[in-house]
Amino acid sequence: MKIGILGTGMVGAALGSKLASLGHSVMMGSRTPGNAKALEWTDKTGSNASAGTFSDAAFYGEIIFLCVNGAAALEAVKIAGKENLRNKTVVDVTNPLDFSKGMPPTLIPDLTNTNSLGEEIQKALPESKIVKSLNTVNCAVMTEPSRLSEETEIYLCGNDTESKNKVREILESFGWKRITDLGGIAASRGTEMMMPFWLSLWGSLKTGIFNLKIVKEKSI
Amino acid sequence: MKIGILGTGMVGAALGSKLASLGHSVMMGSRTPGNAKALEWTDKTGSNASAGTFSDAAFYGEIIFLCVNGAAALEAVKIAGKENLRNKTVVDVTNPLDFSKGMPPTLIPDLTNTNSLGEEIQKALPESKIVKSLNTVNCAVMTEPSRLSEETEIYLCGNDTESKNKVREILESFGWKRITDLGGIAASRGTEMMMPFWLSLWGSLKTGIFNLKIVKEKSI
Repeated sequence: MKIGILGTGMVGAALGSKLASLGHSVMMGSRTPGNAKALEWTDKTGSNASAGTFSDAAFYGEIIFLCVNGAAALEAVKIAGKENLRNKTVVDVTNPLDFSKGMPPTLIPDLTNTNSLGEEIQKALPESKIVKSLNTVNCAVMTEPSRLSEETEIYLCGNDTESKNKVREILESFGWKRITDLGGIAASRGTEMMMPFWLSLWGSLKTGIFNLKIVKEKSI
Repeated sequence: MKIGILGTGMVGAALGSKLASLGHSVMMGSRTPGNAKALEWTDKTGSNASAGTFSDAAFYGEIIFLCVNGAAALEAVKIAGKENLRNKTVVDVTNPLDFSKGMPPTLIPDLTNTNSLGEEIQKALPESKIVKSLNTVNCAVMTEPSRLSEETEIYLCGNDTESKNKVREILESFGWKRITDLGGIAASRGTEMMMPFWLSLWGSLKTGIFNLKIVKEKSI
């Protein structure tokens, strides 16, 4: 499949490399053409990797992964272009982290509790199908869930069932076996609001390579 | 040990009954004396259970469990009385749920993201030792973690190590084996902000009897 990645950071590179290794053709998009990190990633990744602008990658991909910093996400999809993203599945991996008040980051007030970045991206792209996923784990775990000592949970939510099924297939191709559908895009609130807890665990465990597993009641 | 419970709801009753069954003497405190739910709980629980006002229970207990609705928590500790709670460990089990905007509840804006109920309770009781714990699970799981099919995580945080050790012992007496210390009371932000995610999982799993287990990297 042709996949567009918006963002050249660790998350975009990890997802782009994994998708290319699975045989997909991946274009990494950046704000400005000729981005050094995108070109470096392209060189390293091989013949099914390419680089372009946000708009190029949005036009190119059948599915788009949004991997920019949360604070830049709404602007990035605007630059990428509504028309380029029309009718497409956009996998939103972002979290609305606010680094402006120091460390640890808090969440951007307008994008939390009674709102979420997932919902705002869906509003900004009403003709696209936003699926929020993978934002609850570190990028090393996202693409390689088998690094963990047990199967753990990954979540998705969004308003379009067909798009969620497409994303579910991609998650399965990464090795995810426990995929929980949380419902419509408003469930982004919950997964985004896990971030402060995740950061707290990261501090306590001294590693970001962990995840959580749902444990239910003993069957009687 | 003498234990005071502030709150007569499901959480207060579950914790009070468990503590009484473990041999502690428990007083359940309510806003007004002669509360019907407190008296019913006392009758059911037996000779080491008693009932009184918030202030009575705060005075009585060597350790206090704060189990009221989040929206009422700051007022409850005020009524309970700073003097009655001075130098005592107060286990804060509350979440700042805001039901005023309908279901599912959101969090009370002033008590989330850049603040938390745990922190505000510590500020309201500067001479008490607040330990936030047990607010990430349903009350059936709180007191009976062995109902779940695997050991799962419970968290605590607070500024006083000795108080955290006392709470850890109580958690162990309930059967908790995986107890993670998240640091100072500001870590309440993370565990309280899990609530929307917990509610989302509850909707998806159709039961509140579940919890999350931390899974780390495979050892190599």
